[in-house]
Amino acid sequence: MAEKAQLQLAIKTQGELVRKLKAEKAAKEQIDEEVSKLLQLKAQLGGDEDKHTFVLKTAKGTRDYNPKQMAIREKVFDTIIRCFKRHGAETIDTPVFELKETLTGKYGEDSKLIYDLKDQGGELLSLRYDLTVPFARYLAMNKITNIKRYHIAKVYRRDNPAMTRGRYREFYQCDFDIAGQYDPMIPDAECLKIVHEILSELDLGDFRIKVNDRRILDGMFEVCGVPDDKFRTICSTVDKLDKMSWEDVKNEMVNEKGLASEVADQIGEYVSMQGGKDMAEKLLQDPKLSQSKQACAGLADMKLLFSYLELFNVTDKVVFDLSLARGLDYYTGVICEAVLTQTTSAPATQERNGPAGEEGVSVGSVAGGGRYDGLVGMFDLKGRKVPCIGVSIGIERVFSIMEQKAEAQAEKIRTTETQVLVASAQKNLLEERLKLTAELWDAGIKAEVLYKKNPKLLSQLQHCEETGIPLVAILGEQEIKDGVVKLRTVATREEVDVSRAELVEEVKKRCQQL
Amino acid sequence: MAEKAQLQLAIKTQGELVRKLKAEKAAKEQIDEEVSKLLQLKAQLGGDEDKHTFVLKTAKGTRDYNPKQMAIREKVFDTIIRCFKRHGAETIDTPVFELKETLTGKYGEDSKLIYDLKDQGGELLSLRYDLTVPFARYLAMNKITNIKRYHIAKVYRRDNPAMTRGRYREFYQCDFDIAGQYDPMIPDAECLKIVHEILSELDLGDFRIKVNDRRILDGMFEVCGVPDDKFRTICSTVDKLDKMSWEDVKNEMVNEKGLASEVADQIGEYVSMQGGKDMAEKLLQDPKLSQSKQACAGLADMKLLFSYLELFNVTDKVVFDLSLARGLDYYTGVICEAVLTQTTSAPATQERNGPAGEEGVSVGSVAGGGRYDGLVGMFDLKGRKVPCIGVSIGIERVFSIMEQKAEAQAEKIRTTETQVLVASAQKNLLEERLKLTAELWDAGIKAEVLYKKNPKLLSQLQHCEETGIPLVAILGEQEIKDGVVKLRTVATREEVDVSRAELVEEVKKRCQQL
Repeated sequence: MAEKAQLQLAIKTQGELVRKLKAEKAAKEQIDEEVSKLLQLKAQLGGDEDKHTFVLKTAKGTRDYNPKQMAIREKVFDTIIRCFKRHGAETIDTPVFELKETLTGKYGEDSKLIYDLKDQGGELLSLRYDLTVPFARYLAMNKITNIKRYHIAKVYRRDNPAMTRGRYREFYQCDFDIAGQYDPMIPDAECLKIVHEILSELDLGDFRIKVNDRRILDGMFEVCGVPDDKFRTICSTVDKLDKMSWEDVKNEMVNEKGLASEVADQIGEYVSMQGGKDMAEKLLQDPKLSQSKQACAGLADMKLLFSYLELFNVTDKVVFDLSLARGLDYYTGVICEAVLTQTTSAPATQERNGPAGEEGVSVGSVAGGGRYDGLVGMFDLKGRKVPCIGVSIGIERVFSIMEQKAEAQAEKIRTTETQVLVASAQKNLLEERLKLTAELWDAGIKAEVLYKKNPKLLSQLQHCEETGIPLVAILGEQEIKDGVVKLRTVATREEVDVSRAELVEEVKKRCQQL
Repeated sequence: MAEKAQLQLAIKTQGELVRKLKAEKAAKEQIDEEVSKLLQLKAQLGGDEDKHTFVLKTAKGTRDYNPKQMAIREKVFDTIIRCFKRHGAETIDTPVFELKETLTGKYGEDSKLIYDLKDQGGELLSLRYDLTVPFARYLAMNKITNIKRYHIAKVYRRDNPAMTRGRYREFYQCDFDIAGQYDPMIPDAECLKIVHEILSELDLGDFRIKVNDRRILDGMFEVCGVPDDKFRTICSTVDKLDKMSWEDVKNEMVNEKGLASEVADQIGEYVSMQGGKDMAEKLLQDPKLSQSKQACAGLADMKLLFSYLELFNVTDKVVFDLSLARGLDYYTGVICEAVLTQTTSAPATQERNGPAGEEGVSVGSVAGGGRYDGLVGMFDLKGRKVPCIGVSIGIERVFSIMEQKAEAQAEKIRTTETQVLVASAQKNLLEERLKLTAELWDAGIKAEVLYKKNPKLLSQLQHCEETGIPLVAILGEQEIKDGVVKLRTVATREEVDVSRAELVEEVKKRCQQL
């Protein structure tokens, strides 16, 4: 009894907190979180007495897509898939979970974010964290040495969600990768061209594609005097430059990661540099950086990359940026990341491996990727390598922007494609309505009929208005006798009699004109 | 050391077993399973010395889709989605996992097949077992009282996989459901019409759609004298009639489930009955069955359903079958299941909740569903009901049949849509090739270029042959000077010079003609 009283008190306190947050117009997420706690407390109190007292929600960091959101999602996918196909890509699919060991050792510090399945006897499994590692596993398992493929699917990360900014625990990745032993920088250039095409077509505002090379970063760390065993961890600190000031980054390097202050300062000089082909040429002459063989290899490739990008006509948006340092362990060469450059209140999201924008950041990452020549070899029993390069579109952020746009423009999005509603003005015509509807379906017309015996004409017309159905085929005693239907255009309210035999053609013709 | 020797012996024995199975041409699954064990043993031996010794496979019961399988999958989805849209459906999506409690108590005996996620702090989660329960959760959570939606997504069941027969632990469901308070049997008839349309269009051979009603089953159990608390378990035994003889079913009822032998015999008489509208009328007069109110309600609705099915012109394939008894707890009214009736060696699969065909069964279930008027109410705090009916297409089995068909016909399936390959016969024309390719991409043409500085013309032409690219745009010094390209039709080897300015139009024209 004391326990129950305690619980009731907790519910009261929690209820007050929720009311307070609502009154203060706190962030929706915060309110949702506290409401969820409240419901959980109430569920505890309910005990077994009442089966209805459970929490009615989706798992933390996940969301449903309603029909409107699906309509937007399909539009975005269509644009992206068209681009991938334009570039000759095939598509594959892999299971949502992999053997746990397949994912082990591929993600560095981020491994803690992997969802594991419960051990229910049998294999130990984890939900995929990205599409790249399963792709590499697929290549090694099937001994595939070259392929150009895209893969659009959901991935899972136990990250801190920020859903109003498009950061979820379940989110889509749209990956395009080229695997195979080819001449340098040609596939790399095509990947950047693809990002350029997609971001242009999606019409999200101006953008910039930053590129760098893991070898240049490593060479830079080497010549600045970073100890070998600190390359990766310093790299992941540099990676934070898009959301932290240099001072904070330096502070993390020196105080948390134990780097000498002068070393950090030298890194600081390099990572402030941005440019194009000319900068690659200049850095090849840099007395310090040119001491590193791998930096020189990276810089020479960067020069070559830019010459191809010129042919592809995309150098207007591509910047060689020494501060770009994607965190993932498996990158070995070119890395890239695309950001929207317009100040916007639109939400930021994570894309492939990119811990992206946080509070108050106006620029968000919308695509990223890089070269990973060693990953497939990690899965091959004989260590045979298959060089790969890929990019990933950060589609959740794109969805968020599109949804906001649609809302701002009060755009009416249709969620069905129905061409005609079969209706009647009189009673007792259900059977006639069903018969005509089936005729239309069988002729390939998208048709609906209300599931009521005697619906009012007004409610049938309202259904058309609400869902955007352009035509109504109205049946009455007279029409049935005459072998016609009254075809009504919803927008103009115009009505004409059309013979039953010509109805299908007439509906098709009118829908083409719309 | 002794341990190591033991392990080596085990490896040797296992290796011999694998060789023996291969020699005997044993089932691929069995070989794969034993190979996997062998690799695991080898991995143990390898210990930490060699990072490459792990098992390279997908999780048990799952598979990758290669590009050819994806091409088939997309074709099948396209047919199904066109049908759903023809019937005015919207689409939604829900997360791959739900709160564990959302799935609790919805699947009866099958609940043990649910995949749980590991408790990593936070909520307890499970992978979705079907799309119906998440749909009901979605409706209750968003207080939606009517919607017609389809949902195509993967679901997860820790079942015994039989992959050569299309039975997986991760598999697609294609669901179409109508939620809302409507006049009886109209949405139910539309669902059956949809199954009829899809199975006809997919051209899988002849089929039959069995229908029954949970109320008729329950009424039958009641008048035969089955104790109330045994309805569900007897129902799931009756459900096995499609793969077990009546003798075995009766045996399970009497010896495992403790039913009196006479009671079982009475059930046996009913469940052998099949018919149409006439049978519903006859059973309404049955002295025993007509004693049950709910049986009468079900039979009256069955009569009405058949009258609508006549209007929809689908009674040729629909059979009222008293032995149909889908196992799931949540069905409340009409239930249905579609089977292919041609004897075929094609694999059987499970579709929505249907424990489908097993070894040696020539008839497989390819669709199923039913009415579940109480499920949404289970999620509503006030128990508000939203009546629902839905069907699910057992798509994995359809894929298997299509794949086998494609293989049997040695059909060449294209996995890309590339229209033209940009090639050159001479050396040092990489830059020209890249420039032309980018021009084509920018004009919306699907184009590829080999990622080699100086590929041989032969290997460029071979790439077209292998992947089905119909056209080649060949560049040479002379063509560049003349402002033309040589456009070659791969099939006929015909070549004509086309001016650069007209190339895009020419490619489009030719591809339309193909």
